[in-house]
Amino acid sequence: MAAKRIPTEGPCLLTAREAAWRIAEGALNSSELVAACLERIAAEEERVQAWEFIDRDKAMAEAEERDRRRRRGWPLGPLHGVPVAIKDIIDVKGMPTANGTPIDAGRRPFEDATVIRRLRAAGAVILGKTVTTEFAYYHPGKTRNPHDPGRTPGGSSSGSAAAVAAGMVPLALGSQTNGSVIRPASFCGVIGFKPSFGAVPRTGVLTLAPSLDQVGVFARTIEDAALAELLMGPDGRDADVLESPGPLIGTALSEPLVTPALAFVKTPIWESADASTRDAFGELGEALGEQADEVELPEVFSRGIGWLGSVMAAEMARNLGHYVDRAPDRISEKFCQLIADGRAMRAPDYLAARDMRWVLRDALGPIFDRFDAIVTPAAPGEAPEGLEGTGDPVFNSLWTFCGLPTISLPLMTGPNGLPLGVQLVGQYGQDARLLRTARWLVRTLSGEGDA
Amino acid sequence: MAAKRIPTEGPCLLTAREAAWRIAEGALNSSELVAACLERIAAEEERVQAWEFIDRDKAMAEAEERDRRRRRGWPLGPLHGVPVAIKDIIDVKGMPTANGTPIDAGRRPFEDATVIRRLRAAGAVILGKTVTTEFAYYHPGKTRNPHDPGRTPGGSSSGSAAAVAAGMVPLALGSQTNGSVIRPASFCGVIGFKPSFGAVPRTGVLTLAPSLDQVGVFARTIEDAALAELLMGPDGRDADVLESPGPLIGTALSEPLVTPALAFVKTPIWESADASTRDAFGELGEALGEQADEVELPEVFSRGIGWLGSVMAAEMARNLGHYVDRAPDRISEKFCQLIADGRAMRAPDYLAARDMRWVLRDALGPIFDRFDAIVTPAAPGEAPEGLEGTGDPVFNSLWTFCGLPTISLPLMTGPNGLPLGVQLVGQYGQDARLLRTARWLVRTLSGEGDA
Repeated sequence: MAAKRIPTEGPCLLTAREAAWRIAEGALNSSELVAACLERIAAEEERVQAWEFIDRDKAMAEAEERDRRRRRGWPLGPLHGVPVAIKDIIDVKGMPTANGTPIDAGRRPFEDATVIRRLRAAGAVILGKTVTTEFAYYHPGKTRNPHDPGRTPGGSSSGSAAAVAAGMVPLALGSQTNGSVIRPASFCGVIGFKPSFGAVPRTGVLTLAPSLDQVGVFARTIEDAALAELLMGPDGRDADVLESPGPLIGTALSEPLVTPALAFVKTPIWESADASTRDAFGELGEALGEQADEVELPEVFSRGIGWLGSVMAAEMARNLGHYVDRAPDRISEKFCQLIADGRAMRAPDYLAARDMRWVLRDALGPIFDRFDAIVTPAAPGEAPEGLEGTGDPVFNSLWTFCGLPTISLPLMTGPNGLPLGVQLVGQYGQDARLLRTARWLVRTLSGEGDA
Repeated sequence: MAAKRIPTEGPCLLTAREAAWRIAEGALNSSELVAACLERIAAEEERVQAWEFIDRDKAMAEAEERDRRRRRGWPLGPLHGVPVAIKDIIDVKGMPTANGTPIDAGRRPFEDATVIRRLRAAGAVILGKTVTTEFAYYHPGKTRNPHDPGRTPGGSSSGSAAAVAAGMVPLALGSQTNGSVIRPASFCGVIGFKPSFGAVPRTGVLTLAPSLDQVGVFARTIEDAALAELLMGPDGRDADVLESPGPLIGTALSEPLVTPALAFVKTPIWESADASTRDAFGELGEALGEQADEVELPEVFSRGIGWLGSVMAAEMARNLGHYVDRAPDRISEKFCQLIADGRAMRAPDYLAARDMRWVLRDALGPIFDRFDAIVTPAAPGEAPEGLEGTGDPVFNSLWTFCGLPTISLPLMTGPNGLPLGVQLVGQYGQDARLLRTARWLVRTLSGEGDA
């Protein structure tokens, strides 16, 4: 579980919640914290390349303003003075948002995304924009894995995962349409949390496939991941957001009344996991003893990944096809192929695939009747070598498709000593219970728990 | 405005609200009322052919049970003892629901649709199932226009409109995916009210195009149309139902604080209205004087009817294509063509068309900032001669596409003395205000109002 080259002290290693407490108490200034993070970035950025844009002066000015507010005794939000990193497909007013494509270089949104407005209302300092793959699809950006710069950090939320892993910032926003939060969290050895579909408004976030797009967070503790509750609830603009599954923090920090039970699900693509990953999960199952039972998914789930692919292709063709029409020579071949595939798809086939989201979700009902969460790998293995790809989201697709809350926990290491995430998947809308179960699992495996 | 051959007395001519009051007071028995309606049906059905299924004994038994409840002093719902007719695409437990196709002849649902459960909870007696066109699309059923049996009653809610017009029942349910409530209401000279999209759950109603399908009611007064509030609000199963725009009745019966202003909208298809209809609306505009201003829609609206057609074809191919695969020889050519068109449609084109629903709705914002409702024809003219078609929904498509609440008021007659509806369209979610404006218009034009 040892992470390589990750710093072990200094204010930039505080969790977001610790930092907010210290700032609120006057034991730490926001400007000290932001300066420490900027220093850490200056030291590591050449190696990690997590950032697309930072305005150091503006960040320091914002931090100083937060400190003035505190000194004047104004009410403080739960993230007052804490820096947060933002994936570069999320609009931040006053910062360029380039969506991972040179076509949008220099694009400056006129308005904050809803999640940015909510972060600011909570007192956060928006530190800057982190690298995303091209249109948050596969073609990689410049970011490297902080644990081994010769390997991918995963994608598409590459920079957000790497920045948190490298101790540059305690909290970062990402998004997941297939595996873009859970996979990079696994590869970078941080916590990645993707709430239930419809929990967090996507207003001001690049639209890939609205039936699948979901905002998530990267953090170094489960308590910090629970800060996602600040992002949740209707904004009157994203019609898919019905109600908030929060609040999360109270439940996440509470003890389960009954020892949780986990369903160990290999999924239909188990054989695509590395042999070492399969072995590690076998050992995990043994360590959990009677708290985990292996559960086989119904046959229909073997088609889920294909259905997700159909929905992604059709909806991304609808929403992003215009880029291909405008500047095909500045877009990756893989993305052009996706758009072509989506454009070739027939409407009724798309609709049939999309309808299966809720069929599969319902089919998981009996599992969640009996188990608190599903446990399964977050990725097939460690971060692959090379920077040409971002790894395989195959262990994420089913849960994204069903819109279930899911979290990656950096509880394992692979054969090369690199992180490997344990993925927990919760019942739809039961985000708080998922985080509570995750905290129980972490404590149990570290010997602090009661199992 | 004189309706031909429509009865002028007897309990079956009571409005639903009057009937419910009399029953609650003990001045009328439900069994008397239901018997009167059944008698009226027996006298007129051969001529009108509104019904697909009636179980007289069961209806009488239900009515007697309602009378017993009242005599025992049990709490009574707002429709206690009142018979209601149900379009034959809406599931009623214990009655066959054939969806207008011989393929589903004898199909008996195991469960009531949500709207049926709500009607029963309000005390209504489900009298029977009314004729629908094939799959609620164009191919006509057997129903004739009560005002002239040589003419269509309109469709697809043919039987529901005709039954209310012929005095067989005070209230009937229909549905509208394009113009299937407003058009038959216009042709039959009754009130048709289609609430805002997402107001009424469609659980248990045949799914044609879920982005467009909307449940509506037929009645003889606006107060009765306001009883649609009993059907509204989430049922936990139809995900498109967010919240109820009701309650309606109180507002519908109230006086407007300020004299309403109407936007007279000719729509881009004005030339497809009969000359007599265009003349009649010119006279209506003059009668309304400064309470109505002509407003021209932005150019983009000329494409709205085509977009609705695309969404209908794609979604109906998805949801009803299996009928064509199973029994192509028992399905009309027009329906087979629709399914073929939908199957040929590309997914991104479908998605682009569907997204325009909310673009057009937003584009109407400035009109509803200034006007209480849009006034426009409910149909191009009187019911056409012949029974081979059901008339043209062209004046309904835009409002259905945008999901706006709309009502047809039997305020005009055409050159042959047949009814012609005035359509009022309200702001999204402002169903109550639409009904209040409609009541004001009816009273104003009849000389009872203040205009």
